[in-house]
Amino acid sequence: MVRLGVIGCGRIGRVHADSIDVHPRAELARVHDPFDAAAREVGTAFGAEWGTDVDSVMGDPSIDAVVVASPTPTHVDLLTRAVRAGKAVLCEKPIDLDLTRVDACRAEIGALADRVMVGFNRRFDPSFRDIRTRVEAGEVGPLEQLTIISRDPVPPPAAYVATSGGLFRDMTIHDFDMARYFLGEVVEVTATGANQVSDEIAAAGDIDGAVIVLRGANGTLASITNSRRCAFGYDQRLEAFGALGMLTAANQLPTSVRFSGADRTEVAAPYHNFFLDRYTPAYRAEMDHFVTAIETGSAPSPGFADGRAALVLADAANESLRTGATVQVVGS
Amino acid sequence: MVRLGVIGCGRIGRVHADSIDVHPRAELARVHDPFDAAAREVGTAFGAEWGTDVDSVMGDPSIDAVVVASPTPTHVDLLTRAVRAGKAVLCEKPIDLDLTRVDACRAEIGALADRVMVGFNRRFDPSFRDIRTRVEAGEVGPLEQLTIISRDPVPPPAAYVATSGGLFRDMTIHDFDMARYFLGEVVEVTATGANQVSDEIAAAGDIDGAVIVLRGANGTLASITNSRRCAFGYDQRLEAFGALGMLTAANQLPTSVRFSGADRTEVAAPYHNFFLDRYTPAYRAEMDHFVTAIETGSAPSPGFADGRAALVLADAANESLRTGATVQVVGS
Amino acid sequence: MVRLGVIGCGRIGRVHADSIDVHPRAELARVHDPFDAAAREVGTAFGAEWGTDVDSVMGDPSIDAVVVASPTPTHVDLLTRAVRAGKAVLCEKPIDLDLTRVDACRAEIGALADRVMVGFNRRFDPSFRDIRTRVEAGEVGPLEQLTIISRDPVPPPAAYVATSGGLFRDMTIHDFDMARYFLGEVVEVTATGANQVSDEIAAAGDIDGAVIVLRGANGTLASITNSRRCAFGYDQRLEAFGALGMLTAANQLPTSVRFSGADRTEVAAPYHNFFLDRYTPAYRAEMDHFVTAIETGSAPSPGFADGRAALVLADAANESLRTGATVQVVGS
Amino acid sequence: MVRLGVIGCGRIGRVHADSIDVHPRAELARVHDPFDAAAREVGTAFGAEWGTDVDSVMGDPSIDAVVVASPTPTHVDLLTRAVRAGKAVLCEKPIDLDLTRVDACRAEIGALADRVMVGFNRRFDPSFRDIRTRVEAGEVGPLEQLTIISRDPVPPPAAYVATSGGLFRDMTIHDFDMARYFLGEVVEVTATGANQVSDEIAAAGDIDGAVIVLRGANGTLASITNSRRCAFGYDQRLEAFGALGMLTAANQLPTSVRFSGADRTEVAAPYHNFFLDRYTPAYRAEMDHFVTAIETGSAPSPGFADGRAALVLADAANESLRTGATVQVVGS
Repeated sequence: MVRLGVIGCGRIGRVHADSIDVHPRAELARVHDPFDAAAREVGTAFGAEWGTDVDSVMGDPSIDAVVVASPTPTHVDLLTRAVRAGKAVLCEKPIDLDLTRVDACRAEIGALADRVMVGFNRRFDPSFRDIRTRVEAGEVGPLEQLTIISRDPVPPPAAYVATSGGLFRDMTIHDFDMARYFLGEVVEVTATGANQVSDEIAAAGDIDGAVIVLRGANGTLASITNSRRCAFGYDQRLEAFGALGMLTAANQLPTSVRFSGADRTEVAAPYHNFFLDRYTPAYRAEMDHFVTAIETGSAPSPGFADGRAALVLADAANESLRTGATVQVVGS
Repeated sequence: MVRLGVIGCGRIGRVHADSIDVHPRAELARVHDPFDAAAREVGTAFGAEWGTDVDSVMGDPSIDAVVVASPTPTHVDLLTRAVRAGKAVLCEKPIDLDLTRVDACRAEIGALADRVMVGFNRRFDPSFRDIRTRVEAGEVGPLEQLTIISRDPVPPPAAYVATSGGLFRDMTIHDFDMARYFLGEVVEVTATGANQVSDEIAAAGDIDGAVIVLRGANGTLASITNSRRCAFGYDQRLEAFGALGMLTAANQLPTSVRFSGADRTEVAAPYHNFFLDRYTPAYRAEMDHFVTAIETGSAPSPGFADGRAALVLADAANESLRTGATVQVVGS
Repeated sequence: MVRLGVIGCGRIGRVHADSIDVHPRAELARVHDPFDAAAREVGTAFGAEWGTDVDSVMGDPSIDAVVVASPTPTHVDLLTRAVRAGKAVLCEKPIDLDLTRVDACRAEIGALADRVMVGFNRRFDPSFRDIRTRVEAGEVGPLEQLTIISRDPVPPPAAYVATSGGLFRDMTIHDFDMARYFLGEVVEVTATGANQVSDEIAAAGDIDGAVIVLRGANGTLASITNSRRCAFGYDQRLEAFGALGMLTAANQLPTSVRFSGADRTEVAAPYHNFFLDRYTPAYRAEMDHFVTAIETGSAPSPGFADGRAALVLADAANESLRTGATVQVVGS
Repeated sequence: MVRLGVIGCGRIGRVHADSIDVHPRAELARVHDPFDAAAREVGTAFGAEWGTDVDSVMGDPSIDAVVVASPTPTHVDLLTRAVRAGKAVLCEKPIDLDLTRVDACRAEIGALADRVMVGFNRRFDPSFRDIRTRVEAGEVGPLEQLTIISRDPVPPPAAYVATSGGLFRDMTIHDFDMARYFLGEVVEVTATGANQVSDEIAAAGDIDGAVIVLRGANGTLASITNSRRCAFGYDQRLEAFGALGMLTAANQLPTSVRFSGADRTEVAAPYHNFFLDRYTPAYRAEMDHFVTAIETGSAPSPGFADGRAALVLADAANESLRTGATVQVVGS
């Protein structure tokens, strides 16, 4: 059994605790949160030790790996301590909002970066993964255009936005990683943004909608369409278009039931409301990959470099938004 | 140009007049109806001669063919007169409600039966036809089960029901023909019926819903589900299931537009409301087949024998309904 | 925690063991199988005690409930012993192939029948359940026609067929129960059958395809279409048609991915192959219902009477098949 | 009857001749082409006068309107002559490749511009039109994002590309008009392009794929994804996303037939291959609008100003492509 600790008992920490709980070869040893109540609730729910002292996780030699699910500003420090303590790390995205800090962290941990996995869960979504596998196998021929549509159901609270790093580093970062998953190296970013959803977001100097175009090193174009609000739930779609055809992943429905009546037909239920429902299988597959990497001693993927590269693209998108010009990217 | 006369200027006569009008090699020469106003309206609308004397159609040597779209009791007489006058005939279903009269007609016209086409328009629906072609080509392997769902949007008026010959001879007759289109000879009929839609229909001694099971000579089972009422429009679907797979024809939508909103997703518009909309391409393809048969001197299909066979199945279904037992059929 | 024992460590026993394993309030205490290897394998896999002596299950006072997943001929005896030992029972379908034995069992256990749940898992399928709930809520108005299509991917081995009790009692029994789930009391059965799939099945005197029509006490017609072979996987669909509209449950796909290429478009992957994949959520919801019934002391549903009623319909279908006539049913 | 002349008997001229032919209140009086054989073929096919002298069209006072379907460089001259001759004009897109010439033409014809309709046929597609109507009616709330995917099945011949004006003025111009149909005034254009399809196109200095982002005066973002090649046919889709939901138009299939077999399910046939099939109903509705405008004396729409505005956007896209920067647009 791989024994894991979870640091951070908020919404996403609980998701990981659950994935560990149902994994046949993983065991949730201990959860941590600076708030006693949060730690106790999650610890109790999953039958794990719990506490407010992070050293009890870091210093426990029986714990093989740590999931860093705490607020973003704490990621670098916790990640660094954990790998130094000999543990594998699954770190939630982003590693940090500041590329300088990310690079400093990378310099500090050196080869231990290979023990770090970054939580780009969507790579493990069965539909997206299936498309990636089939693109790699040549089913659509050379990939020419990738279309990502990614909309959140409701905008986050103003307080969250204030420290989020902005749309590109907070939300689009998942889509940047998805683009890299298909395109490999990205060399060019062109971003447009809009304020249509929330006055609070505008007041905070952030945008709430965007269309971003990326160019891969091999010429493939990828477009990402984002919105902070989507009336019909969590809109998560992808199309991979190539010389021989196209693979698409549509939104997913909780059942296969449809209604036809006097004034409308084939009506489906609402889509999954948000990532907790939509990506449950992805989070579990992500955890399985992490556990397996620990067992086999291999470097998990997506890794530290992928976390950094997505941030580079987010920064480039911000620069493009500011200058109104395409930005050339190196090292993504 | 093939010159045609249309006898009967009701709803279905107008459909045929329209199909002739848009056909590049056909010309609507004359329309007839015992009601002066009806004949004039259709004649004027399509730029054809019109009148109330049927001899002006039968006796016009420039007219190559006649569409019999008058009330059912007149079909046999008009069909007989027309073929004797040297004309090809497209006769609306059913030839007659009484099998004895159909057989007498057949005896009387002899080999001229080859000049008669019966208006089972659904054989010409592009979707059903495509499935038939692919089944014949072996795409699903030996055909094992055929599922037909056929529901009308609203029940007919009581006055219509009274003279309709009952559900099986009036409505299901199209489905019996469709079953024969796929199964060839049918050897067994098992029928169940229900009264759920209309008290008037029940009072007239008829049923308004049914499930009928047919067995083909080669063992294939076909089921037909009927209702006289369908809240969501004209429900016309078919599935051909065989050893290697299945071909299905779904209901058709006027546009490809779908709506997703807060409490429902992928909402389509209502289906086509009834046969005039749903089967317009089928009526036109039917007319094209008829015109081409006249041009080439070949016997059109479905022919007189198909019209008779569907009636045999309707009579067998009525017997099965009365006796509660499966009825063996000969000669369908 | 509700502590359960599983008797029978074959395919379906393992499914139930898994459902218990992932249930937060249930614990798999012990598994039994007359074959030592089978019991050990399942017991080890789920961390439960295991053995070949059924008394170790029946006699263990710490075990609250027993899942009877052994061969059909043993069901009545094991079920009887278990309820007498004070345990709740989840008995796989059918209770027995012989209605006389079922009735004798019922007489013997008396009021303890309320402690028996019968394993009609499809009632717990999220899609079918959603339709049932919405039909009950009046969304389609009075239910007029129910269409069930239920096809297995591949025919069972000849040895299985020989002791299966025939298509209706072995396979259709699930569909009979589904019909009762929607129609309530069924008063009439009309069955047709066919041999198209397997010479071995024919040689065993059984059919391998069927269309059965049921009539509910309130007049609703239900049709069931069965086949022992389906090239495209496990075909499990249902339509509930009423005066105000229709609710349909389509087959389910493992991902939302579709391919479009030069000669075909919107190609989906194969459906779930068989019940283990298709009905995993149903089996888990079934177990949750059973566990909750034990916790609350309520009678689980579907119960003993439902198991009996489905068998009555299967027997009626066999009689209809033999006589070629509709069979009136009492007490279903 | 409205009497029309068609100038240019190539592929698109023939489409318009056909639309006139089937229109109940329009008559194809005369067709013109500098090539005698082309004029004769189309004239004969539709029973119209034909010739190689354009004055026989312009000078015929019985002709109410002219369809300009000749090569682009002749549009301005023919359009000008026709309106001066008192005729209404349906001019194929683009009016001209050179905005200066378009503006000079506009200055020259003055108020007669109101008699000019520009052939943006897609505005008349029943699906796109339905979405537009429903967006205007507020069904999705304020429009926030418009997603247009528009791919041609195969790249045009090199000779065509050489004089086409480039991707944006030749192909994307339809999508620019579609964006304006939904957004109204467009104020900003950001374009990216790619060469993935054809070496000949690259050699001609043109691109063969693109993603363009437009911003409307009210802030709505529109993205257009283009390719000169699409393996699965003519890819023509649109999504209108707003605060309350989304309306989508999917690709259209010739029948509703789907196949399910051993290794794939729900397989549809190829989409319509190209605009002649896909947009037949649109071309007919376009002609109906034009004929009705003539009958009622109203200005047809889209008009001259719409033709100019789409060209302005194409020019802006070319500038954005060249500079790598967003281009501000005035007067679109």
